[in-house]
Amino acid sequence: MDYSAKTKKLVGKASVGDRIAVRAGGGKYEGFLMPKHSGSPDTISLKLESGYDIGIRPEKISVVKKAKNAEPEPPPKHAHDPSKPVISILHTGGTIASKVDYKTGSAFPAFEPEELTNAVPEIKDLANFRASVLFQMLSEDMEPDHWVVMARRISEEIEKGSDGVIIFHGTDTMSYSAAAVSFMLQNLPVPVIFVGAQRSADRGSSDAAMNIICAVNFAVKSDFAGVGICMHGSASDNYCIINPAVNVKKMHTSRRDAFRPVDVKPYAKANYNGSVEILRSDYLRKDKKRKPVLRNGFEKKITLLKIRPGFNFRELELYKGYKGIILEGTGLGNAPVSVLDEFTKHHAKLLDSIEKMCAGGVKIFMVSQCPYGRVNMNVYSTGKLLQKAGIVPLRMTPEAAYVKLGWALANFPKQVEEIMLENFCGEIVENIKDDTFLI
Amino acid sequence: MDYSAKTKKLVGKASVGDRIAVRAGGGKYEGFLMPKHSGSPDTISLKLESGYDIGIRPEKISVVKKAKNAEPEPPPKHAHDPSKPVISILHTGGTIASKVDYKTGSAFPAFEPEELTNAVPEIKDLANFRASVLFQMLSEDMEPDHWVVMARRISEEIEKGSDGVIIFHGTDTMSYSAAAVSFMLQNLPVPVIFVGAQRSADRGSSDAAMNIICAVNFAVKSDFAGVGICMHGSASDNYCIINPAVNVKKMHTSRRDAFRPVDVKPYAKANYNGSVEILRSDYLRKDKKRKPVLRNGFEKKITLLKIRPGFNFRELELYKGYKGIILEGTGLGNAPVSVLDEFTKHHAKLLDSIEKMCAGGVKIFMVSQCPYGRVNMNVYSTGKLLQKAGIVPLRMTPEAAYVKLGWALANFPKQVEEIMLENFCGEIVENIKDDTFLI
Repeated sequence: MDYSAKTKKLVGKASVGDRIAVRAGGGKYEGFLMPKHSGSPDTISLKLESGYDIGIRPEKISVVKKAKNAEPEPPPKHAHDPSKPVISILHTGGTIASKVDYKTGSAFPAFEPEELTNAVPEIKDLANFRASVLFQMLSEDMEPDHWVVMARRISEEIEKGSDGVIIFHGTDTMSYSAAAVSFMLQNLPVPVIFVGAQRSADRGSSDAAMNIICAVNFAVKSDFAGVGICMHGSASDNYCIINPAVNVKKMHTSRRDAFRPVDVKPYAKANYNGSVEILRSDYLRKDKKRKPVLRNGFEKKITLLKIRPGFNFRELELYKGYKGIILEGTGLGNAPVSVLDEFTKHHAKLLDSIEKMCAGGVKIFMVSQCPYGRVNMNVYSTGKLLQKAGIVPLRMTPEAAYVKLGWALANFPKQVEEIMLENFCGEIVENIKDDTFLI
Repeated sequence: MDYSAKTKKLVGKASVGDRIAVRAGGGKYEGFLMPKHSGSPDTISLKLESGYDIGIRPEKISVVKKAKNAEPEPPPKHAHDPSKPVISILHTGGTIASKVDYKTGSAFPAFEPEELTNAVPEIKDLANFRASVLFQMLSEDMEPDHWVVMARRISEEIEKGSDGVIIFHGTDTMSYSAAAVSFMLQNLPVPVIFVGAQRSADRGSSDAAMNIICAVNFAVKSDFAGVGICMHGSASDNYCIINPAVNVKKMHTSRRDAFRPVDVKPYAKANYNGSVEILRSDYLRKDKKRKPVLRNGFEKKITLLKIRPGFNFRELELYKGYKGIILEGTGLGNAPVSVLDEFTKHHAKLLDSIEKMCAGGVKIFMVSQCPYGRVNMNVYSTGKLLQKAGIVPLRMTPEAAYVKLGWALANFPKQVEEIMLENFCGEIVENIKDDTFLI
C-alpha cells in the first residue's frame, strides 16, 4: 500500500526499520518505521518501544537512527583457556534471541549464539563457551519431540566434558521444557540452566543480557548440579533468581520477573554484579564423576484438562483412547461428581466415566488449578469419591505433572502410579512453608 | 470393623465424634474419634485439627469434649428494626456452612442459615437479616444452571427491598459464580457479596465467622453497589479484602487468604474490628432507585482449553459442535501453529482447524494461562497468525472469559464478539498497575 504524496514527502529518506521521531496530533512519538499494509494513505505505521504498532498521521518526521543493513563482522574467535570451565550454550530460539522482523512487524528468533555471547562481554572471561543451535523457534511451538532431542543433546554436551549447560529458550513453555529435561536426564553432574527473556534484545528494557550474565555466573560460581530456570527476580535490573525447574510458573504475560517458584523457595539469587547467594541446601552438588541417566521416552497420547462448572462426562469421554490424563481440579482437587439436585443428575455419569476409564487402564491424576498449595483429596467427600473411582492425587504443578505423566508412561509403562508418586527431583512438595506464597 | 479387646478398653466411653486426647508412640495427639473402617484392630482413626485422618495405636485415651448429640434449641427470632438495613443471606453451601460428617470422615454442608447468623453475634445489631437456603452443596458441584437460579433469586431479593445480598458459597468455584452473577445481573442498586471459608466452622482456625462479619460490615457501611468476594486479606485474623468478582482467582488450595485480585486492586479492606477502608473509586454507588437488569441465559455448549506442548488439531477437533471455546494460551496468548521443522508439520493443521471452526461460526477467544498480565497478540508472529485465523484476544481472567462467553452466546447470539469486547463490569483490564502483581 502506498502513501499519499504529502505523507511520502514527510517520510522522506526514512526507510522501513529506521528509528524515527514523529510529531503528530500535538504529541511526539518515537519508534521504528514499519511497512505500510493498511489504513489511510496519510498514515504511517510505527512500532513503539512497548511493542505496539500504531497508525499515526505524521506532521513531522526525523530519523533518529538508520537501520543497519550491512552484515555484521563475524565475531573474533577466542582461544581456549584451560584454567576456566567449559559452558555449553544450546540455542533453541525465543525472545532471548529475537529481533523485530520489519516485514511482518513481529519479533522472530534471529541472533546466532556467537553473535549473542559476543554481545554480552561480561560473560566472556568467566568460561570457555561452546555454542550450538539446537532449534530456532518461539517456545509456543515446542513439541514433546523437541524435549527428547534437547535431553539427548544436553547429555552429549556433558559427555564431551561440559561443566555446565545453558539453554536459551522462549519463556512461554520454558517451565514445561525444564521439567521435561529434569525427568529425562537425572543424576546430573553439572548445572543445566534455562534462560529466557521477556523483552527482546533490541528493546531498551530487554532482560536478555542480564539474565544471561546471571545464568553464566550461577553456573560457573555455584556448586549446584541439576536443572534451574534463571530469570529476573524483581522488576529492577538487580538480580535474577534460580527457580527449581519442576516447581515454577510463568505468573505474568509480560513482566521481566514473571517466573516464580511455586510452594518452594528459589535455589539462589544471582546478582547482576556477579555474586551468587545460595538460598537452599537441598540440591545435588557438582560432581563430574556422577553419570547422568538419560531416559527420554515420552508418550504423547496424554492431555491436561481443567475442571470448571459445566465440565461433564461427555467432555471427558472425548478423550477415549488417551493413555493418561492430568485433571486440574478445583480447590483441593475436586470435580463435579456428586448428585444433589435436578441440575447435578449427570454428575453420576462423570463418576462412572472416570471409573470405567481408570478400570480400562487410563491413568488419571489430579492436580489443582489453584497456582499454590497442595492437593488433598481426603478432606471432602468429593475427593474421596474421586479417589475411589481411580483418580490419584498428585502434589505437583500441572506443568510438572503433565510432563512427568508422558515420561512415566513411556519409560515405566508398568509402574506409572508408583513412578508418579515417587519424588525424583523435588517435583512433589510435601511441606509448604508460609513464606513461599506469592513471592 | 471392630477393635481388639485391648483397644476397646482404651477407647472406653469415648464415642465417634468426641474430641479426645491420645498418647501413642511417645507422642500426644488431639482430635476427633472417627469410625473404624480399616487397619489393624489395635488402631483407632483420629481426625486431627489439620483436617487429616491418622491411624494410630493408642496407649492412653481421654475424652476432651463429648460430641453434642442433642438437637440445638431453635434460635430466638429477632424483631424487625426499621432503622436498620435489610440484608438477605442466600445460602448455597460450602465449607462456610460445613461441619465434619463423622460417618464418612469428610466435611459436608450442614448449618441452617439462622443457626449460622445466630452463631456470629457480631453481625446481629448491624441489620435485619432475611435468610434462605438456595442450595446445599459444595461448590465443585455447582453447574451453570445454578447460576441462572442464583441470579434470579438475588434479583428477587432486591425487588423485595433488600439493601444488600450476601451469598454463602463454597470457595472452589466462587470466582466463577461471582463472575456469572456480575454478567447476569447488571446495574445493581445494592452490594452483592459472596463469602466463603477455607476452614470449616468446627475448626479452631476457621475463617467462617470473620469473613461473614467483614462481609456484613462492608455491605452495610460502604456505599458500594455491585458484586464482590469477601475473604481473608492476610494469613492473620485482622482484615478481609473485597475482591472484584470478575478479576479474582483462588490462588491457593488451603490458605485462608487464598482469594486475590488479578491485575487490579481490591475494592476495599473490611477490618475485623468493623471499620471499612475503601481502596478504589471506580465502582457503582448504592442507589435503590436503580433497576437491576437480569439477563440470565447461559449457553452450556462451550469449553475452556489449556494450550500446552503437545496440544494439536486432533484435540481441538474433538470439540466440533461446540458453540464457543476459550483457549488459555501460553504467554501473551499463543498456541502451536507455526511450521518450523519435522516435529511441527502438524501445526499447520491446527491453524487450519481453528480457521475452519471460526469460519463455521464457533466463537474462539484467547486468554492466557499466566495468572497475571494482559494478552497481546500483536507482538509475535504466532499471535498474528491466530488472529488471522479468527481467534479474538480477550484481556480477562480465564474464569471471567468462560462465564462471559456462555452468557454472551445465550443472550446476544448475534453480537458475541462485540459483547465479549465490551467492558460490562470491569472484566476487561486495560491498564495494569505495577503494584497489582502477586498481592
